[in-house]
Amino acid sequence: MESVHVRLGPRSYEIALTTAQPAGVGPFARRALPASTAALVVSDANTASLANDVEATLRANGFRTASVTVPAGEGTKSLAELSNLYDALYAMTADRRTAVVAVGGGVVGDLGGFAAATYNRGLPLLMVPTTMLAMVDSSVGGKTGVNHPKGKNLIGAFHQPAGVWIDTAFLDTLPDREFRSGLAEVVKYGVILDEPFFDDLEANAGDLLAREPATLRHVVGRSCRLKADVVEKDEREETGLRAVLNYGHTFAHAFETVGGYGGWLHGEAVAAGMVCAARLAERHGLIGPVLGQRQLALLTKFGLPTASKPEWPMDELIAVMRRDKKAAGGNLRFILPTRLGEVRLFDDVPEALVRDVLAAP
Amino acid sequence: MESVHVRLGPRSYEIALTTAQPAGVGPFARRALPASTAALVVSDANTASLANDVEATLRANGFRTASVTVPAGEGTKSLAELSNLYDALYAMTADRRTAVVAVGGGVVGDLGGFAAATYNRGLPLLMVPTTMLAMVDSSVGGKTGVNHPKGKNLIGAFHQPAGVWIDTAFLDTLPDREFRSGLAEVVKYGVILDEPFFDDLEANAGDLLAREPATLRHVVGRSCRLKADVVEKDEREETGLRAVLNYGHTFAHAFETVGGYGGWLHGEAVAAGMVCAARLAERHGLIGPVLGQRQLALLTKFGLPTASKPEWPMDELIAVMRRDKKAAGGNLRFILPTRLGEVRLFDDVPEALVRDVLAAP
Repeated sequence: MESVHVRLGPRSYEIALTTAQPAGVGPFARRALPASTAALVVSDANTASLANDVEATLRANGFRTASVTVPAGEGTKSLAELSNLYDALYAMTADRRTAVVAVGGGVVGDLGGFAAATYNRGLPLLMVPTTMLAMVDSSVGGKTGVNHPKGKNLIGAFHQPAGVWIDTAFLDTLPDREFRSGLAEVVKYGVILDEPFFDDLEANAGDLLAREPATLRHVVGRSCRLKADVVEKDEREETGLRAVLNYGHTFAHAFETVGGYGGWLHGEAVAAGMVCAARLAERHGLIGPVLGQRQLALLTKFGLPTASKPEWPMDELIAVMRRDKKAAGGNLRFILPTRLGEVRLFDDVPEALVRDVLAAP
Repeated sequence: MESVHVRLGPRSYEIALTTAQPAGVGPFARRALPASTAALVVSDANTASLANDVEATLRANGFRTASVTVPAGEGTKSLAELSNLYDALYAMTADRRTAVVAVGGGVVGDLGGFAAATYNRGLPLLMVPTTMLAMVDSSVGGKTGVNHPKGKNLIGAFHQPAGVWIDTAFLDTLPDREFRSGLAEVVKYGVILDEPFFDDLEANAGDLLAREPATLRHVVGRSCRLKADVVEKDEREETGLRAVLNYGHTFAHAFETVGGYGGWLHGEAVAAGMVCAARLAERHGLIGPVLGQRQLALLTKFGLPTASKPEWPMDELIAVMRRDKKAAGGNLRFILPTRLGEVRLFDDVPEALVRDVLAAP
């Protein structure tokens, strides 16, 4: 079995990479959670049947299980749904060995993960991501949380999983728009950390869009490895290093907040945000035109948006960026590329340039 | 200034011990929170005027401040009040440098601390405990959380403060019952860790009950040091060592849950719980009668309860103990004394003995 090992001392864990191995979850959980005898399986309407399979293999491997299915969609990342998970954990007499198993996309992982982070001051967590975005991003690295009515992910905790089980066959039934959205974060890893990987993506875009299993395992595995490399060096976003993962995200969060939760998918917002960030780097004199052109071409091939929507008020976008949690003391801060495969943090970008870039078609 | 240093690597912090130095909070906060320029001051109805003084000294030392006053009482440790704190943080445009300053007893510290632990995945926290219990226990060690409707502190996180400011003058206006309740945890430290400190408490019980400032600083400081020694060795309750602090608490949580939140104060429940635990140790053949007699005498001198209430159903008490978060796999587990100043974990205590002890007058 292919896997990626995340080295975080006592919080180290394995990311398993498989294709069409649904019965493998139970034995993997048995190894990743040696002390656990019970598990709460969390899923949403889209993943409830996969969650049933997961529950069966957990039971076959010695776990007592209970399950909760939450509504699909970003609105589920709320204190109210969180409270329902707490109730379910209470009802199953959860103790500190009881694991939470999140079967789903980013919403299920973030919500289930935050319940695990905060029930009894911390339960073990197993991630079973079922979307491209969750596989390459949200299930790796320990970020968990729910939304505040005024902003995404404002409430949360760092809580590393005890293991991540990735089965690329889960992607077979993923709607096309969601699959493409996940590819934005994949492109991001190439731009910020790994030029050869970016070359790979350009060369194998067709196989990737066709969801060819070996290509998926390679692309997902490399993305996880690149993210893990960063998380290992700055687990809790303290040294600034982990901030490189936020490339495109200051813009993206503004698009998501102003556009509303029903607007763009996260990866769509990130795609347009990366285009803005590359353009900002160019106007700021950090790079020439080639990086932005290649990034734009790849994102376009993946069918992703590449600019802000004209109906979003500029002043609102700027206001959201100023209160972004990556802002410090009110300054606008951006992760910008200095060459393909390398980014740095800049806090000296004039607001006028940001407005120019947002206004570009 | 006297102080206790808690050594936790990058999460190390200072506990300042003062008497009648209200203007000292601002300079202390300036040192403990060098990167912070804003603070949310949280208090309850009992501490709102102290919180005003704290806000003034914070502003005089360069902090922009906002404040929230929550209702007094255990019912405030709820997801609803937590949500109000999140709203207040959002309203003041909090970023990761914005500190939460909790001015109050255990309820304010636990609630404010959990908001700090989970807003933006972690804000710096300054504790200004105003009750005996908060000074010697809840403000030191990083436990934060709120209650689940079915059980105390079921939702929470470990989040160490950046500093703790203790002013024993805050105790001058504390109601007698609350003051005495806090002394239960003080007695606990002597029994579990420090025989000479227990001797001290016996010898100086009069000065302590008279709230003599130097005695208070000594007793509070020694209690903080003893707790810090344990927390330093087992910050997140992982090795089992920190469990020694739970002496008396398996019983106490059952008394609190079955008695309801309006029943005993936490320290009162702990006092009766320690009497039960010592008696259990005696029946289990671990100790002779002297420890229990001395402990009973001291707790009685402090006006604290020393037995379960006859109207509490035995089966309910036992059921709560079985689902206590210190239980593992359903076994009853107790921290029991093996001599004055030393305790150990026992998971082989027959339920019949527990029932005997609970039935004793």
